[in-house]
Amino acid sequence: MWREIGSMRKIILIIIALTNLFIAFAQNSTFVNPFIGTKSMGHVFPGAVAPHGVIALSPDTDTIPHNVAGKYQPDVYRYCAGYQYNDPTIVGFSHTHFSGTGHSDLGDLLLMPTNGKRLLNPGTKEQPETGYRARFSHNQEKAMPGYYAVTLQDYHIDVELTATERVGVHRYHYPDQNARIIFDLVHGIYNYDDKTLWASVRVENPQLITGYRITNGWARENYQYFAIAFSQPVLNYGYEEYEKQSYAGGWRKFNLKENFPEMAGRKIRCYFEFELPETHVLEARLAFSAVSAEGALKNLEVEAPLHKSFDEILKETQQKWEKELSFIEATGNPDQLAMLYTSLYHCKINPSIYQDVDGKYRGLDGNIHEAKDFTNYTVFSLWDTYRALHPLMNIMDRKRSADFTNSMLAHRAQSVHKILPMWSHFANENWCMIGYHGVSVLADAIAKNIPIDRKEAMSAMYSSSTLPYFDKTAEYLKYGFVPYDVSKNGVSITLEYAYDDWCIYQTALKEGDTQKAEEYKKRALNYRNVFCPDLGFARARYSNGFWKEDFSLLNTHDEGFIEGNSWNYSFYVPHDVLGLMKLMGGDKAFIAKLDNLFNMHLPDEFFAETEDVTREGLLGGYVHGNEPSHHIIYMYNFTSEPWKAQYWVREVMNRMYRNDLDGLCGNDDCGQMSAWYIFSAMGFYPLCPGSDQLVLAAPYLPYLKLNLPNGNTFEIKAPKVSDKNRYVQSVKLNGKPYTKAFITNDNVITGGMLEFEMGEKPNRKRVFKGDDLPYSQ
Amino acid sequence: MWREIGSMRKIILIIIALTNLFIAFAQNSTFVNPFIGTKSMGHVFPGAVAPHGVIALSPDTDTIPHNVAGKYQPDVYRYCAGYQYNDPTIVGFSHTHFSGTGHSDLGDLLLMPTNGKRLLNPGTKEQPETGYRARFSHNQEKAMPGYYAVTLQDYHIDVELTATERVGVHRYHYPDQNARIIFDLVHGIYNYDDKTLWASVRVENPQLITGYRITNGWARENYQYFAIAFSQPVLNYGYEEYEKQSYAGGWRKFNLKENFPEMAGRKIRCYFEFELPETHVLEARLAFSAVSAEGALKNLEVEAPLHKSFDEILKETQQKWEKELSFIEATGNPDQLAMLYTSLYHCKINPSIYQDVDGKYRGLDGNIHEAKDFTNYTVFSLWDTYRALHPLMNIMDRKRSADFTNSMLAHRAQSVHKILPMWSHFANENWCMIGYHGVSVLADAIAKNIPIDRKEAMSAMYSSSTLPYFDKTAEYLKYGFVPYDVSKNGVSITLEYAYDDWCIYQTALKEGDTQKAEEYKKRALNYRNVFCPDLGFARARYSNGFWKEDFSLLNTHDEGFIEGNSWNYSFYVPHDVLGLMKLMGGDKAFIAKLDNLFNMHLPDEFFAETEDVTREGLLGGYVHGNEPSHHIIYMYNFTSEPWKAQYWVREVMNRMYRNDLDGLCGNDDCGQMSAWYIFSAMGFYPLCPGSDQLVLAAPYLPYLKLNLPNGNTFEIKAPKVSDKNRYVQSVKLNGKPYTKAFITNDNVITGGMLEFEMGEKPNRKRVFKGDDLPYSQ
Repeated sequence: MWREIGSMRKIILIIIALTNLFIAFAQNSTFVNPFIGTKSMGHVFPGAVAPHGVIALSPDTDTIPHNVAGKYQPDVYRYCAGYQYNDPTIVGFSHTHFSGTGHSDLGDLLLMPTNGKRLLNPGTKEQPETGYRARFSHNQEKAMPGYYAVTLQDYHIDVELTATERVGVHRYHYPDQNARIIFDLVHGIYNYDDKTLWASVRVENPQLITGYRITNGWARENYQYFAIAFSQPVLNYGYEEYEKQSYAGGWRKFNLKENFPEMAGRKIRCYFEFELPETHVLEARLAFSAVSAEGALKNLEVEAPLHKSFDEILKETQQKWEKELSFIEATGNPDQLAMLYTSLYHCKINPSIYQDVDGKYRGLDGNIHEAKDFTNYTVFSLWDTYRALHPLMNIMDRKRSADFTNSMLAHRAQSVHKILPMWSHFANENWCMIGYHGVSVLADAIAKNIPIDRKEAMSAMYSSSTLPYFDKTAEYLKYGFVPYDVSKNGVSITLEYAYDDWCIYQTALKEGDTQKAEEYKKRALNYRNVFCPDLGFARARYSNGFWKEDFSLLNTHDEGFIEGNSWNYSFYVPHDVLGLMKLMGGDKAFIAKLDNLFNMHLPDEFFAETEDVTREGLLGGYVHGNEPSHHIIYMYNFTSEPWKAQYWVREVMNRMYRNDLDGLCGNDDCGQMSAWYIFSAMGFYPLCPGSDQLVLAAPYLPYLKLNLPNGNTFEIKAPKVSDKNRYVQSVKLNGKPYTKAFITNDNVITGGMLEFEMGEKPNRKRVFKGDDLPYSQ
Repeated sequence: MWREIGSMRKIILIIIALTNLFIAFAQNSTFVNPFIGTKSMGHVFPGAVAPHGVIALSPDTDTIPHNVAGKYQPDVYRYCAGYQYNDPTIVGFSHTHFSGTGHSDLGDLLLMPTNGKRLLNPGTKEQPETGYRARFSHNQEKAMPGYYAVTLQDYHIDVELTATERVGVHRYHYPDQNARIIFDLVHGIYNYDDKTLWASVRVENPQLITGYRITNGWARENYQYFAIAFSQPVLNYGYEEYEKQSYAGGWRKFNLKENFPEMAGRKIRCYFEFELPETHVLEARLAFSAVSAEGALKNLEVEAPLHKSFDEILKETQQKWEKELSFIEATGNPDQLAMLYTSLYHCKINPSIYQDVDGKYRGLDGNIHEAKDFTNYTVFSLWDTYRALHPLMNIMDRKRSADFTNSMLAHRAQSVHKILPMWSHFANENWCMIGYHGVSVLADAIAKNIPIDRKEAMSAMYSSSTLPYFDKTAEYLKYGFVPYDVSKNGVSITLEYAYDDWCIYQTALKEGDTQKAEEYKKRALNYRNVFCPDLGFARARYSNGFWKEDFSLLNTHDEGFIEGNSWNYSFYVPHDVLGLMKLMGGDKAFIAKLDNLFNMHLPDEFFAETEDVTREGLLGGYVHGNEPSHHIIYMYNFTSEPWKAQYWVREVMNRMYRNDLDGLCGNDDCGQMSAWYIFSAMGFYPLCPGSDQLVLAAPYLPYLKLNLPNGNTFEIKAPKVSDKNRYVQSVKLNGKPYTKAFITNDNVITGGMLEFEMGEKPNRKRVFKGDDLPYSQ
């Protein structure tokens, strides 16, 4: 008897111990709030996704743009991620979403559980009852990493979603045994009703359907093969076509619309009806492949076969998230931790895995390739992510970082232009934004000893920076800048090319190609050709050398820039800050100009032209809600007043990253905005990717520990830090006083401790000179 | 000196000997006249094709149907093969064509050489100068197996074409150094301007382009990947899009329309411009693949790399044709030999090889498969070709016959319905016509010991004949016939199902599945359920057992039949002729009915409703220009007046197969009409495929020798045969008197000699009884 009680006690103790372990282990993901940024400009989605999974299974709340006089209204922009918090209805749950982009696409393969009257059109948010969409309330909605749940009020259906890398897993609780699933192959984000080029569905057996659709959206040609397993046999199914298509012969022999196991067309919406067992639960699992239905089926069988329960899959995905989120341990208040871990979460969504479980993937050349020594990824928003996301990966996820660069090299090998990706997704190049920043990502990886084929990387850098017809490269090389008469974005392009050229210069130097090093060293100074000495700012210039007249420093449009005005873009010389400072009139003038940027008021007429940001995304004239200025604050380190970086970084973190629905001041841009936050929370930032230096400001939290993938840890302590004590008095690295303005990537990954003594007032003696300054050409 | 002259003589003699050998070897293809049937109903094409090659590179003379009130006029029918002899212009040279079909599709990947003004639209035949098409004259046109040449008068360009199995090879002679090629990705046969779902072109280098298009034509989803090699570098290229498509981003950075190496859209037409060397010759080679651009490139490299000359390729293809055409040696007048060898030529075009050189092919399930133990073929017009083409293949090309059946079994394995093909092409089932005649092809192959997986074949036969939703199979099984109230084609369907069921019965018997044999033996008699005893004809019947009132024996439409009236279809019991004879009232009544069929006059109002035939395609009421009656003449063998078969077969051959542009009296139907001719010329015909018997009539020519693939020969002698001496007096097989009405397939392939003594009058004593009668249930 005692013995039994003894064993029982033991069991209970073990259970308690395990539970504690689980809580300890589980706690980071509990801080994540996927709803941050789902309102307004964040463009993130609350749905279920596994770390870097291609499946991002999330509700689309309204994706139908209003067609006014043949033109789409900008609603298409609002729905980059398919979800806007204020919307009253859910159209359905589609399987692919960008995280935080400023351009929309995807929203593929929408499933929607319904019951009652069979409606195959989505209806409108004003009159949801005219279609299959349903009302919902945020009171009946829940999201956490790898899990999303909501109640569809019109149907009394409780929806739960989870995801593996390649499979979206749905669990629907119906009010009774009558169940229907709508499978809408017209639905998509970007262009609403003419996106699908072709869709095809096969009912292989009552519990398995396969098929594909090809879309022409932002991705020019996007192939989405699928295999869907139902936990119950379908009793009755069919479709409606919303545009005539031919399937000659068949119509005479069959009723193609009902229970005919082949359904195809340009615009089809299918339904599947079930009679449920007493549980009233129906599960659906949609596996994605860009290769083939066969590939989708393999993905389904490996990742989410029906014999594996929803809860098991959910648990595995949650464990993957815990592992990812365990990279950082931190102390802070709940809002700070929510912001920190949500940022980390946002950094682990894109790029997305883009290959089947057997390694096959669709290449940029349209051929099916097999990834042999790497895992292929897609969704490279490089104009955004070269800045901080990829440098962050070079610390926290070096294996994936190698995969990313290898994926970019594969893209380049498959490109008919033989150049690196610019903004690539789903085996497409969409040519978004400017620069050839793929070279920055490669240079940063090489600078930080990520194992990649350097010869191949060098070759890719050269070809990407010398393709004459690529976005005015010929003119850039001819004039040393991109003239305004050649491109309305000429100044921005010139500045960014010059930085990219510096990256190539650095890599050539490192790899011993002195001739190229010399060539690109010169090219890196091209930024000077668009700097107007009289004005003291970067300025649009004509090919005859004349500067643009009637030039506005504040205007974002038509002044030679893109997504930034001259005030912000003039600071875009991350690779030669001292050179820029000199051009701007030296230390004092440079400080004055920086101060002015942060303290000025941007009149409404000019704000209206800034892109992708809310009013909160501005600090004076400094635009944080978009990328071109992300490095600017850290430039104070080169001046005699470096503490101003410490001030403004904290100001940005407090004001522009809030644990709130509209807590993101601009598009998260596939993790770039979040990566800025994480770096800045650590107290340093990659001001100039391509160098191995991380430029200091001040930590945001009193304690932060990085659990590095090599097993080392790097601790960042700033016990006294607070909004009041935001100034660095002194720094110790591994216990020793540290006087430089930067640490290196190696400092971090070899592990150690970085300690900041914080105070209320700036330490005006802590000014960096000579070797203590960050590297600058 | 003498010695030298001696060697010279020797060389000359060798040359003469080789030349003679070549002439001897080459002579059969010189008889082929690819223009036979290119006018009116034959629906064959004159262009270049290798035996059973997927590339059928041929001029399209006008494929633009006239859209009247939103409906296409039947021009689409006229252009099944893209070419109509009377047309004044050539639109261009497209790479895929059906041979002789009654339904149109293909016409893919059109190239057209031009010069002068750059016109990217095809123009009209009335005003060719408004587009890129050109006038031509038959005086400047030439066609032979594997070769086609024409002069484009508007451009003074001489065009020569040849083809390998997977590559179309073009040689253009321009009048000067200015050359252009139009590549029209909108063009296609079937639906003119909305066929292409998507097209994509990559200029890999100045001499190589790759890409693909997907079409939705008669084939629901047809993938055409290509690789095109030019013999000269392209200097300038571009495209026009005829429907807006999005390629976001790109338009801001590039001039996508000119010299940008990616061209894509729903409706695009490209041009490529060259500066030629002094020869003024430009070659283009287009390799096709249904798998990938990579596959097309492999096909190009293996079959027609640029280092292989046009003439070498042409010679190889011509040698392949000689080999195929050497199957028959015959004596006859030039017109007879032209008809014979052209018929043989038409039998060796479809089915078409449908896999890349590495064995990969697109399956019916949309997945990419690899053909391991067979070669995959497509274009199975089985309602037509089960009758004579496949039985002919079981004599002359047993290797390909095995490939055909294996291709059909692969189709079935990939079918979501798990049934054999009906009318399949390019990885699609188009459900054309009726019956599950795939089972006939399998049964015939098994009866004739073609090596195939019999277990798999049996399983395929069963599944194909029991799928409830397949074209009224459920009702057929329920009522024993397909009621008129269920299908307007119910009688035809019933008759053909019953025959197919007999094929299954025979196979089950052969394979020892007695239970199935019993079941299908019964089903084979279902033809009786639509035979109206009062009327003495097959008649539409309702599910309540009542016969259709107001029934017309002559009308083709709405009487229960399809592509044939009751007069013709009533004889459709190839598997139980004696049974049918009994139903029709015995020998004399049966003969009277047959005689009546051949001697009646079909009034114009009823002729207008026959399909796919010219007036010449009729003999009285007998319709030879379409398939349902092809076996009827041979039925006389079961009667007391078998010589009438000898009379009418020769009558049909003389009247309905003429060495003339409109020499085919109906669609050639992928070789079925031609196979009928070849069998009938031999003196026998597969009255009932699925049995191994070939039913005799009389040979058409005095001498005919079959060079069998196993090395044996089978000679058919009828030295006295002529239109006058059309009656068989007696027969000898291998020197011995032969009294049966049939020989077996084995008789032929083991080799030997069949001799016919011919005379002016019928030998009225030569009547078949008992074992001398062909097999009949």
